[in-house]
Amino acid sequence: MRQHITLREVGLRDGLQIHPTFMPTEDKLAWIAAEAASGMREIEVTSYVPPKLIPQFADAEAVTLGALRIPGLTVAALIPNLRGAQRGIELGVHKLNFVMSVSETHNMKNVRRPPADSVIDFRAIVELIKRQPANQRPIIVGGLSTALGCSYEGRVAVSQVVKYATQLVEAGADEIVVADTVGYADPNQVREVFKAVLAEVGKIPVAAHFHDTRGTGLANVSAALDCGITHFDASLAGLGGCPFAPGASGNIVMEDLCFMLDSMGFDTGVDIERLIEVRSLIARSLPDIPMQGALAKAGLPRNYVMAAARAVSA
Amino acid sequence: MRQHITLREVGLRDGLQIHPTFMPTEDKLAWIAAEAASGMREIEVTSYVPPKLIPQFADAEAVTLGALRIPGLTVAALIPNLRGAQRGIELGVHKLNFVMSVSETHNMKNVRRPPADSVIDFRAIVELIKRQPANQRPIIVGGLSTALGCSYEGRVAVSQVVKYATQLVEAGADEIVVADTVGYADPNQVREVFKAVLAEVGKIPVAAHFHDTRGTGLANVSAALDCGITHFDASLAGLGGCPFAPGASGNIVMEDLCFMLDSMGFDTGVDIERLIEVRSLIARSLPDIPMQGALAKAGLPRNYVMAAARAVSA
Repeated sequence: MRQHITLREVGLRDGLQIHPTFMPTEDKLAWIAAEAASGMREIEVTSYVPPKLIPQFADAEAVTLGALRIPGLTVAALIPNLRGAQRGIELGVHKLNFVMSVSETHNMKNVRRPPADSVIDFRAIVELIKRQPANQRPIIVGGLSTALGCSYEGRVAVSQVVKYATQLVEAGADEIVVADTVGYADPNQVREVFKAVLAEVGKIPVAAHFHDTRGTGLANVSAALDCGITHFDASLAGLGGCPFAPGASGNIVMEDLCFMLDSMGFDTGVDIERLIEVRSLIARSLPDIPMQGALAKAGLPRNYVMAAARAVSA
Repeated sequence: MRQHITLREVGLRDGLQIHPTFMPTEDKLAWIAAEAASGMREIEVTSYVPPKLIPQFADAEAVTLGALRIPGLTVAALIPNLRGAQRGIELGVHKLNFVMSVSETHNMKNVRRPPADSVIDFRAIVELIKRQPANQRPIIVGGLSTALGCSYEGRVAVSQVVKYATQLVEAGADEIVVADTVGYADPNQVREVFKAVLAEVGKIPVAAHFHDTRGTGLANVSAALDCGITHFDASLAGLGGCPFAPGASGNIVMEDLCFMLDSMGFDTGVDIERLIEVRSLIARSLPDIPMQGALAKAGLPRNYVMAAARAVSA
């Protein structure tokens, strides 16, 4: 049995949020449908922030409802606060991705409160979810951004990451995401942080969210795999980037990640060639968005046999 | 004591050889001098192929002699055959990098002989070197290209890599380079191949030469580090590419590699900020050459302290 790796497309949220041009709702839904058809089972489709703050997500309701029509897809959305959670519950989204920063400065700049207060907010969100009928409760994810470094504070203490991961799990998180929001991490640091987090909260899924800002993204994935991490965020064409570094790489590139995992013998469930084709939808919709990705330029290796077929013939 | 990693710049050879514009000799020498000044201790400066075949190396003599004037630098050059070795010996180059392909088809296309005949050529080169006075013998390196995949044959058997590595060492190689010439490798494959090679010839240095053609380059470095590999090729700005995939990424990016290694606590001896500055020499000399690199766009992490300084303060 090949080890299954759960991949989660975050380009529609993390990738689009800093892009100044609005991607039309129908293009977002076409992207979601095409990527789901390539085998992607989980997509973070939008963010329930006020449209005033990020106009890109003015169509959060329509995108959520459209995505929920796709069979077999887990539809996730980012929530910054209780109000976002309420919107998500009303829409019937499958999964709510709450995010707070481990770095105090980053959290203050982002949501104007210290991390300890974000944990209190998270508890209120979990309470809200628990008040829903059992069959209407979304999965609630506790996300820790800047967990491997902060563009204000630099290095972030591992003990702080573990502390907030533990508090979010105690508060009721179904899953934790540890994020290298600004792409500072190296493989040794990844092993240190993820081993420490897994030691405390490893009974629930711990996902990794890496950026490729300094080229180490897939090396960090490989290190996280060594620790036993099996859930990874990535974005098609590496959409994302960093407001602090114009032109810099963003999230790790989903196609490159899929290739690496497949080549290593993991089961991603994704058809890489169909996944690559989805890039053209983005390029047509947002011709000016910077698209990364090595595999899309180079193509699969000659005579490459997907892991699923190798497993059958072996 | 921090583990030292030996880095070797190959951009002047692997990076320039497919570029159609001749880089003026003085620009090559300025690049070599600036990169050596940043702390790079070994540079493959040219290739002793007939200028008819690759006009970029028409100035091989001048570049070699110029590079040899830089104190503390190990000056290496690629040799395709005995004649190239003869030229290198006459010039007094420090190190000769002989390359053969593990893939039969690739070797036939490149040097019009099966790999077994290339081993015979290598023996003759070693004999030539042994005939020199002891203080005039260059270091002789046996390089195995397409060792992790071939753009004609696809996957390459690990047993073949081990076989030719063993034969080159038995013939007298001072060092082996195992190269993923076309960027097919994943971290699991790297561990498999390098462990097998090290088990047979690990008494001499075994270096890794990775390309980032499909985005896995630094992940493969990390896997090779896990195996105990401490010698890595890379090129500034990732110069290189692949004649089979126009626009594709080339060698792993030296700056990104240096950052990853330094962040992991290894001692590379390279000043990353000075290294990044060398990119501007290339951009000025060859404005149309594609330059890769994430770190150069994003910059070092905030408050980043180089490993050497961290070691002092720890």
